[in-house]
Amino acid sequence: MSSEHPIGRRPGDPEVTRAAVLDAARSMFAEHGFEKATIRAIAAEASVDPALVLHYFGSKDKLFVSAHQLPFSPEDVESAIFDSDLDGLGERIARFYLSALAVPGSPAVSLLRATATHEEAAEMLRTFIDLTLMGPGLETVPGPDRRFRMSLVASHLLGVLFGRLILGIPELAESDLEDIIRPLATTFQRYLTDQI
Amino acid sequence: MSSEHPIGRRPGDPEVTRAAVLDAARSMFAEHGFEKATIRAIAAEASVDPALVLHYFGSKDKLFVSAHQLPFSPEDVESAIFDSDLDGLGERIARFYLSALAVPGSPAVSLLRATATHEEAAEMLRTFIDLTLMGPGLETVPGPDRRFRMSLVASHLLGVLFGRLILGIPELAESDLEDIIRPLATTFQRYLTDQI
Repeated sequence: MSSEHPIGRRPGDPEVTRAAVLDAARSMFAEHGFEKATIRAIAAEASVDPALVLHYFGSKDKLFVSAHQLPFSPEDVESAIFDSDLDGLGERIARFYLSALAVPGSPAVSLLRATATHEEAAEMLRTFIDLTLMGPGLETVPGPDRRFRMSLVASHLLGVLFGRLILGIPELAESDLEDIIRPLATTFQRYLTDQI
Repeated sequence: MSSEHPIGRRPGDPEVTRAAVLDAARSMFAEHGFEKATIRAIAAEASVDPALVLHYFGSKDKLFVSAHQLPFSPEDVESAIFDSDLDGLGERIARFYLSALAVPGSPAVSLLRATATHEEAAEMLRTFIDLTLMGPGLETVPGPDRRFRMSLVASHLLGVLFGRLILGIPELAESDLEDIIRPLATTFQRYLTDQI
């Protein structure tokens, strides 16, 4: 153990360093929220250089996703959903989220359960929605009320996940996913591009 | 204490009897589910005559609602939502449920929290949905897939309640309820009466 590395980390062991940064990130995001938990503060908490955090994780968004083992990153959503024209936007959203999350073994189960009882988990899920559905790609949706429109979309997705995975409403839990995606796609397209 | 009343209840004290029936009902509904928990079994558990249970509560539906302090009964839903023609059905559903539940102090908060972590609460909420949205009034909705259509409606309502009350998505939590009811009403009408 070297005195230059007071918490006993061996220099040059990237796995140990990564794990320490992820621990620090989870605790800082939970305590201070996404905006106020800076890379600098997370690095300090993990006793590493801020440049190393960026070297390992690329950005605060990506660090957040890695720290919480979230199923996809803001970049995945950007390219799957927003990097095309508005036609078909509702369908892409319904398909992307439900294919990833409305399935057996979905990470949405533990996330929704935790959210219902822990404010830190709720903060995490709000941030995840902010970084993905409400991320920069949302600028492609016209109208000053685009965040409100997307919050209606988010509510419907949350409700399908809750009803299918947590509550176990038979008609939602046992239906073919395509039969759910189709009507939601039409609803989402209307919420995002029509008069509501 | 009379030997004819082995659990020490005083004859003719209706409040004590009511409370015993409600206790028995909660425990039997949680253990056996709504269908299998008969009035007869609940009465036996409470050491009262089945006729007395019906005298106090009127029906198993109403006993279920009373036992769980639910915010409204199947009859309330029937008359508020289904006792008119199909025009405006979506709007009536959105307005009735959100006015009752998407408000400060809503009983939906504890119900959703409990549902996320306790199977008995999930069973209770599934039964509540079955007795209200999926009750006899649903027969007014055309098509053999009416339960599936209504499950889409239920999912959206659940999601708005979860997003507004539990998760605290700002655009849902801070919006005027009318601004949420309007787009949901259109969606619900489409789900229940159009091609989906």
